[in-house]
Amino acid sequence: MPLQDHHKIVSVDDHLIEHPRVWQDRLPETFRDRGPRIVEANGNHVWNYDGTAFPTVGLNAVAGKPPEEWGMDPVRYEDMIPGCYDPSARLKDMDVDGVEAALCFPSFPGFGGGVFQRAQDKDLALLCVRAWNDFYIDEWCATDRSRFVPLSIVPTWDPQLAAAEVRRTAAMGSRTISFPDSPVPLGLPSFHNSHWDPFWHACEETGTVISLHFGSGGFVPGFSFSGTKAIAGEMALPDAPFAVAIATFSTNLMWSTIDLLFSGVLQKHPKLQFSLAEGGIGWIPYILERTDFVWERHRHYQEIDFDTRPSDLFREHFWGCFIDDDFGVENRHKVGIDRIMLEIDYPHSDSNWPNSRKRAAEVLVHVPDDECEKICETNARTMLNFPAPV
Amino acid sequence: MPLQDHHKIVSVDDHLIEHPRVWQDRLPETFRDRGPRIVEANGNHVWNYDGTAFPTVGLNAVAGKPPEEWGMDPVRYEDMIPGCYDPSARLKDMDVDGVEAALCFPSFPGFGGGVFQRAQDKDLALLCVRAWNDFYIDEWCATDRSRFVPLSIVPTWDPQLAAAEVRRTAAMGSRTISFPDSPVPLGLPSFHNSHWDPFWHACEETGTVISLHFGSGGFVPGFSFSGTKAIAGEMALPDAPFAVAIATFSTNLMWSTIDLLFSGVLQKHPKLQFSLAEGGIGWIPYILERTDFVWERHRHYQEIDFDTRPSDLFREHFWGCFIDDDFGVENRHKVGIDRIMLEIDYPHSDSNWPNSRKRAAEVLVHVPDDECEKICETNARTMLNFPAPV
Repeated sequence: MPLQDHHKIVSVDDHLIEHPRVWQDRLPETFRDRGPRIVEANGNHVWNYDGTAFPTVGLNAVAGKPPEEWGMDPVRYEDMIPGCYDPSARLKDMDVDGVEAALCFPSFPGFGGGVFQRAQDKDLALLCVRAWNDFYIDEWCATDRSRFVPLSIVPTWDPQLAAAEVRRTAAMGSRTISFPDSPVPLGLPSFHNSHWDPFWHACEETGTVISLHFGSGGFVPGFSFSGTKAIAGEMALPDAPFAVAIATFSTNLMWSTIDLLFSGVLQKHPKLQFSLAEGGIGWIPYILERTDFVWERHRHYQEIDFDTRPSDLFREHFWGCFIDDDFGVENRHKVGIDRIMLEIDYPHSDSNWPNSRKRAAEVLVHVPDDECEKICETNARTMLNFPAPV
Repeated sequence: MPLQDHHKIVSVDDHLIEHPRVWQDRLPETFRDRGPRIVEANGNHVWNYDGTAFPTVGLNAVAGKPPEEWGMDPVRYEDMIPGCYDPSARLKDMDVDGVEAALCFPSFPGFGGGVFQRAQDKDLALLCVRAWNDFYIDEWCATDRSRFVPLSIVPTWDPQLAAAEVRRTAAMGSRTISFPDSPVPLGLPSFHNSHWDPFWHACEETGTVISLHFGSGGFVPGFSFSGTKAIAGEMALPDAPFAVAIATFSTNLMWSTIDLLFSGVLQKHPKLQFSLAEGGIGWIPYILERTDFVWERHRHYQEIDFDTRPSDLFREHFWGCFIDDDFGVENRHKVGIDRIMLEIDYPHSDSNWPNSRKRAAEVLVHVPDDECEKICETNARTMLNFPAPV
């Protein structure tokens, strides 16, 4: 019987909305005015940061609303249920949802800290990165350290500073870094570049998993969106509905995976672990077979590790997760039963809240008990080393 | 017993290299000098067109070479086996390979005619498009009309001219148009734009299938390649090995498919048929499940057909093909057994020539006889209406 009461769901992908005082409570006084703060603008709450207004306070925070009422991101805190920004309310929402523990990604900073990457004043941006980490680990997670998994972001513009922040936050208990799914769209060197070695080294040394959440590099997939519009010399508004991008976002993580498998990074840093957040799993067997096929034929003349099969590397270094993915669950042994986890995605539109546990039981109905336990709980605890042994 | 002698392989994706006189034999004298012609440059054969040199005469024409010797595209006709550019030699190579019939895509013009799309002189470009179609249909295919499937390209810069070329070549026997996998990277409106209605209408009216070959829109997938470099404001050389792009190219067709499923085009033009060329099939069940999931949740507030499930549309309008795709073959009933075809990809690097039939027999070893026949032969004949009934 799958999903029994003793199986606790540990979600590897949830989101929080930062409350208005996250940065104002933490930045030194000289930076506070320019640090992120909530202001009123035409009846909306907007983030103001370094002289720029960021119009969406509650990106995609639709938990508790029926799909018929979606379509507008929340514009005031009152438009959201408190679990979005209040960790005590979140714990109650997790109880209702049947979820034991959650790993929460940032909202205003971008999933991977892209807002601070793009900022002009990098002294301020570094303080903002540290403030978010301090907020999440010491304020939000402190509400219940057995139920919120510590995560941090890094100053992506400097691999040495990033390595230092990995070490600082690992010492505070951080288990994973949310890093861009690719640094390239942010104007940074790709995963193929040795530029990132200090960062990889710090992650390895501290046992910090790297979470790649789709879209965290700022690249919106699909021919009508950012990338291809740019190559056509045009940055006009897309004429495709945004549903196209929502349906295609997992292709970002296919690209990230293939980049890393052909980069040599995993051979150089054999302890690195990557969590593919919100990417689904049903595509993994196809992509691995295809990548092996290309490796077989093209490693003779390209700069690719000649001896290590990409699918073997994948099974040592990658973890996947899903919400609704019947095809992936059916093919779970081709993905790797020890490498699959659940995600809840509260409060975003993919989430089944407050029915996540009920929906998980449906999706896992044909999965044997021991595999169910791995998928719901123990794989995530293993990957994240959570809770850390005392 | 799968793949019996009476099963004839009809490949829906092969390539030809244009011989030096394709355009010189056909263009009016006033255009001939500026039309594509082969010139000698530092011991190489290069195409010269409209004042520009195109350095690669034999893009990826590696048939007959072991992978150990790949790495350089052929630079002279003598570097290729004659089957690349000579249809009589090709028929012999198909005999050796156990292949009955082939659909050949262009090389110099780009798979979807992008070279002519990008050209300045559109009068010349239109003549060049027509000349390629006349060459392929009336010279190449005429070598054996029972074994070469007529295909054509269109002047993509003008939907009315494109519609006229669809009608002109359909009358000559063309069964399919090779169209860009997306027009957007070529600077053209997307599939969501009514701009293309005259073209869709002509394809419907003439029963012409639209073949979308990955890469035919000029977009090279992967974070280190064209699209994301452009969005990062940089068009520098990628630091990833090209194997990354080769492994990721099928994501182009995932994007094309999702674009079309959410575009409304298929509802407006219910007879349209799309062939996803060189895209593989193992990803299709995951992408359809994901697209249905997004449709269920987001059709309430976005401009999406509320009543038609994307996966139902897919099964009425799309065809997939594969070379090596064990995972796809295992899941063939989730893809749609009446919608899967074989491709050979001669003379490119994915091809198993001269062992294509042998390899197909291995891939299909667990597939029942009737399904094997559909995949190898009858699905392609149905889609292409080939040979056309007398």
